[in-house]
Parts: sequence; structure tokens; C-alpha cells
Amino acid sequence: MNTLLARRMADIAPFHVMALLARARELEAAGRSIIHLEIGEPDFPTAEPIIAAGCQALTAGCTRYTAAAGLPELRQAISNHYRRRYGVTVPAARILVTPGASGALQLATGVLINPGDRVLLADPGYPCNRHFVRLVEGVAVGIPVGPETGYQLTAQLVEQYWDARTVAVLLASPANPTGTVIPPEELSVIIATVEARGGRVIMDEIYHDLVYGAALQTALAYSDQTFVVNSFSKYYGMTGWRLGWLVAPEDSVGAAEKLAQNLFLAASTPAQHAALAAFTPDALAIFEARRQEFQARRDFLLPALRDLGFAIPATPDGAFYLYADCSRFTDDSYGFALRLLDETGVAMTPGIDFGHHRPNLHVRFAYTNAIPQLAEGVERLRQALRG
Amino acid sequence: MNTLLARRMADIAPFHVMALLARARELEAAGRSIIHLEIGEPDFPTAEPIIAAGCQALTAGCTRYTAAAGLPELRQAISNHYRRRYGVTVPAARILVTPGASGALQLATGVLINPGDRVLLADPGYPCNRHFVRLVEGVAVGIPVGPETGYQLTAQLVEQYWDARTVAVLLASPANPTGTVIPPEELSVIIATVEARGGRVIMDEIYHDLVYGAALQTALAYSDQTFVVNSFSKYYGMTGWRLGWLVAPEDSVGAAEKLAQNLFLAASTPAQHAALAAFTPDALAIFEARRQEFQARRDFLLPALRDLGFAIPATPDGAFYLYADCSRFTDDSYGFALRLLDETGVAMTPGIDFGHHRPNLHVRFAYTNAIPQLAEGVERLRQALRG
Repeated sequence: MNTLLARRMADIAPFHVMALLARARELEAAGRSIIHLEIGEPDFPTAEPIIAAGCQALTAGCTRYTAAAGLPELRQAISNHYRRRYGVTVPAARILVTPGASGALQLATGVLINPGDRVLLADPGYPCNRHFVRLVEGVAVGIPVGPETGYQLTAQLVEQYWDARTVAVLLASPANPTGTVIPPEELSVIIATVEARGGRVIMDEIYHDLVYGAALQTALAYSDQTFVVNSFSKYYGMTGWRLGWLVAPEDSVGAAEKLAQNLFLAASTPAQHAALAAFTPDALAIFEARRQEFQARRDFLLPALRDLGFAIPATPDGAFYLYADCSRFTDDSYGFALRLLDETGVAMTPGIDFGHHRPNLHVRFAYTNAIPQLAEGVERLRQALRG
Repeated sequence: MNTLLARRMADIAPFHVMALLARARELEAAGRSIIHLEIGEPDFPTAEPIIAAGCQALTAGCTRYTAAAGLPELRQAISNHYRRRYGVTVPAARILVTPGASGALQLATGVLINPGDRVLLADPGYPCNRHFVRLVEGVAVGIPVGPETGYQLTAQLVEQYWDARTVAVLLASPANPTGTVIPPEELSVIIATVEARGGRVIMDEIYHDLVYGAALQTALAYSDQTFVVNSFSKYYGMTGWRLGWLVAPEDSVGAAEKLAQNLFLAASTPAQHAALAAFTPDALAIFEARRQEFQARRDFLLPALRDLGFAIPATPDGAFYLYADCSRFTDDSYGFALRLLDETGVAMTPGIDFGHHRPNLHVRFAYTNAIPQLAEGVERLRQALRG
């Protein structure tokens, strides 16, 4: 134990799946066939129009710093996206381009959270969220959620957990690890509930365009006081480029920009130039085809896992995750995932990576693989679980 | 005033030069010729071998996440660099590739600093350093330094300011804004002084290869307990790519990696592949030629500014900055910089961007312009200041 480390490090968890991934790589190196259902990253490479724009920017020498808030033309393109996609007016001046959604989450929490301030969020949820709060000495309050609320917070839960030290609620829709969506009418009531108490909503919309039929609306349609986090990683397929954005309320955008100057200087310049191509018709057609492919995978994997005996009571309407109750098989999902990896070569993420509420009874499957691989994975699991 | 903002935002300063830069752009848009001596970024584009490697990586589809610590081959290349350049063995396992030196500074401060902990640093200095400390609720203690110590901390100053709440000292050599270097023997005594008190040194070496004759040694030669921050931005000319690295002590590297997973996921994948080309003989020859060009610029600009009446008592041996005492002309360096920009079209950075110690009596000149432009700038200043 290193006693020189800051206390916060005891509360910041590593990604436990990395140990599993290392084991999977070991097995692969030894010649085993591994089916990766643990990776939260699209299996598609970045679309060709974006690659081409990236190369063009490099050869044109676009390699110097941009302003901290990002390329003006990219901020405008994102603003146009809100008008076209949602019919919502978001001035480019409120949009900051960031190093991934990670950068946006860090700006929002850094700007809003004082030491001891409480931030409500769903448990299970994306683990980094509570760590961004912890980094600035805030207190992330994980609210246990289950299938009865679609694994999402509700206005009623927010009311129930709100207290004098609470300053913000962090929502994600569609969510990781559950893929579930907050219905628009509920979202609008949550936002009103939070704002009536003088708090702020931080809204993670990084999976917003990966939805399969569910109605969805950006939080910006309901309030211009919301901090909205988004990303070029998932729908736009630019994970490794590390590019996202933050929409900040008008009275906070100056503070967020000041923090961005100091923490990042700016987001990657080549990535910003490349991302301009993400809004072209050619690129959008590719993303739509990929979205349909994800939908087909979900439609295949969801019933297949249920048939194996996994309980997935709330139908996931977005992202590329299925959060499965494995209590029929085990009360130790980490050991379960390790055992299945060794026995079947199928890798999944144990619940422990997503919080403290019943992680031992859940695993996450990511359908970031083509249907034949998913089918092969299901078949191997069938033999192991029925054996 | 937005009362919903966290208190830290009152202590985090914007880059004041941005207002000046905006004014310069305005003048340029109106047709005025502006000589930019305010920009802390090499005027050279990224070298061709790196551009080529970047394009190759993109077309090969290297666009997905890397591990949080970075590409193994890049970590190894950096390790080799320490052996070749300094004769120091630094295992790749202690090297984390980060989104710029900014990311490395954030990991080091996040891992080490508890709320209320004090971190000693030189004033004037790189402004973001104190803000990284403030972000995690630490207290950055700016120690006023002047020409008598080469604008650097000394072991004596560290002893003098150390108290029971002090946990770390942040050094930069060569430094921004002064370009001065800590002599190796002094550096080794500072490190011993800090470690004897149970503290840690965070050492910023991002300008390490941009030196003009001064002896220099990496802090890693003196201690394996030091956190060393470095970057591909300055010497390697990759500013806009946002790529740097952190060398962490063996007992802290796990914590730093865990924090990197949560705060960044990983550094940019295309940038990491491109950076592999930075250590090729072709690229290194380009960097050496550029270093010599910077040296020639310093050798031109330093005496020219002194001749104009700016006092630059400690000769800057590195980086691409001259920190000039302008007290002969003004006691309001910000107004002075604004006035000279308007009158002469020469842009410089006022001292206020570098701390609280006599900022009003100093400006920083960056020689990130070819000598003919520097000469033109000097001539314009001569007319304005002697007029």
C-alpha cells in the first residue's frame, strides 16, 4: 500500500474487465478462439469519409492547437445537428468541443461540484461518472435501480434522494450498461424536478443516435440549463480519436471554456477536422446502416440470451449492451465470467464494473460483433450452461 | 455572477492572452500586419515522417481505443529514448502515454494531492500547473522567484517554504515563461531535499530537448520516485495532436493508470501511431535542425530586446521564450501589451498569465517566428518605444 497516494485513489476503481481482457488475450495468444462480448466499442472502423478528411487535414498541415472551445466550423456543425435532428436551437457559442465525452464530463463536474456536494446517479451505471465526481471531492450517490424503472432514475427517485447537499443529477439515456432509455415525458419531469430545487442536470447523450425504435429527445429541448455531454465515439465510430462535446448553459460556458483551456488546452486538431466529415450525407448513410446492423444484433441476441436463462426484464432500446441477470447460474458474476471465458472462450463484463447494486448477479454483453459470432457465442454458452 | 458554479472556478484564471489574440485577429481581419510573439507553439508544422505515419495509421484503420497506458511499442520507444538520450533506464511499465502533458500533469496531481495539501511551484510559471492543483482542492503555493535564482526554485527555497502540509514540489526545466534551466547539480539537491521530507517532485520536462548549450539531465537520473511529465508537442512538433507522457514511480503507476482509465480512457490512437515515427533518424534530424533555428532566433532576439531597454537578466537557455522586465516603460504590462499591439502590430503575452509575482512589470516574447519577422517586430517596437 502506497501511503503517499491521495485518499481519493482508494475510491476510484480500475476497470475490472481489463483483467478479464488480459486473460482473453492470453488465451488468444495460445491459439484459442475468443468471442469478445465484453468490449464497449463498435467493431466497425471509422467510416471512410472521416478517414479521408483526417488524412487531408494532416497533409494540409492542420496540426497546430485550435482554440480551447474547438474549431468554429465544427461547433457550428454540431449546432446545425441539433436543429436538424431535434428541431432545437443550440447556439454554437454554447458548444465546446472536448477530448471525448470524458473531457466533457470532466468540465461539467469541475465547473459544478464543490467538495462534499452530492450528485445523484443511477447504479448500475457508467463507472467513470462517479469517479469524475470523486476527483473534485464531490460525493456520487448511486441510487439503486432495477427493471421496475428501466434501470433509470425517475423524478420520484430524484425527489426521494434529494437533500440540502445535492447539487446535480447525472443521467444517461440510452445508458451503459443497460441500454435503456428515459422516456421523453419522464425526462422532462426529472429536469423540472431538479431545476425547481436549484440543481443542475448533467445529461449523457453519447448513445443518443443508437436507438432502435424508442422515442427520444435531447434534454436541451426541455431546458437550456442542462449540461449535455456527447461524443463522436459511438454513433460516429471515432472511439480512438477521442473527440466529444459539451453543451453548457449560457451562464456557465465561460467557466467551462476557462477550465478547458487549463485542463486540455484544446481537443485534437486532426480529429476535429476529420469530424467535420461526420455530418456529410455519405457518412450519415454509413452510420444509419450500422445502426440498423446493431438493431439486428440486438434483435438476435436478446431473445437468445433470455432463452439461455439470463433474465433481461427491461428491453434495452439503445446503445449496444444487454445487462443480464445471471442469478439463475451464480451469485458471483465475476467468477462466472472468468469461468465461462476459460471454458467457452466467450468474454463478457462482470457487473462489478458498473456499481455497487447487485453487481454479483449481473453481467453485461456488448453486441459489438457480427451475428454469426454472436450465434457462435450463444451456442458455446448453451453447451456450458446446460452441461 | 453565476452562483451555481463551484468555488474553485473563482481561482482558476482564463488565459488573458486570448483577449489579446482576439484583438490581434481583429486587426489582421482589418488588413493590419501582425507579428505574433505571443504564441507558445512552434511555427513549424508537424514533421513529414510523422504526418506520413499518421495517414498510414488512419488508412490502416488504427482508429479504435488503445489500452489506457498507451501502445506498448510507443511506451517502449519512449523507454529507449531515455536510455539513448540520458543513459537512464526507465522501464516501459512506468511510462503512461497521455493526452498531452496536460493529461500527465492531471494524473500526477490527481494521484498525489489531497484537499488542503500544499504544492510548491515557481511564480512566474506555467499557469495551468496551479490550476491542476486547485482542481483537486490542493493549495498551490507560488514561490516568488527572480533573476537571482534564474527564475527557478532552489533547494534553499524549498526548505524555506516546506511545511507540514506540503506534499510535493512542481518544477519545470526549461521553464515557461522564462526559458531558464535548473542546473543538474541543483536539481539533484532539490530532489533529495524533497524526498528527505517524504514529499514528491513533479518534474515538467516538456522543453527538455529545446536547449541551447546548457547542461541538462532528466530528473529520472536522480530518483525513481519523481513524477516526470513530457510531451510530443514542443520538440517533436505535435502540438495539435495532444500527446504526452508521464513517468510514474513504480508504487504509483498502477494508481495513475487507473485514473487514466477513468479520466481519459486512452490517448488518441492515430496520434500514438504517428508518434512512433518521431524517434526515426529522419524525424530526429528535422527536430535537430529546428532546435538550431530556435537557438539562432534566441541569439538574435535576446540582445535586440535588451538593446530596446527590456531587462532580461537571466539568460534563457531553453524553450522558445524570453521573459522581459518592462519596468523601464510601464508598470501595467497588460495595458502596455495592448497598446503596442494596436500601435505596432506586435503581439506579446502580458505577465499576468504567469502568476502573481510582479506580472505587471513583465511580458513574455515567444520566438516562434522566423528571424526576418523577429527583426521587423524589433524595428516596430524600437520606433514605438523610442518615439
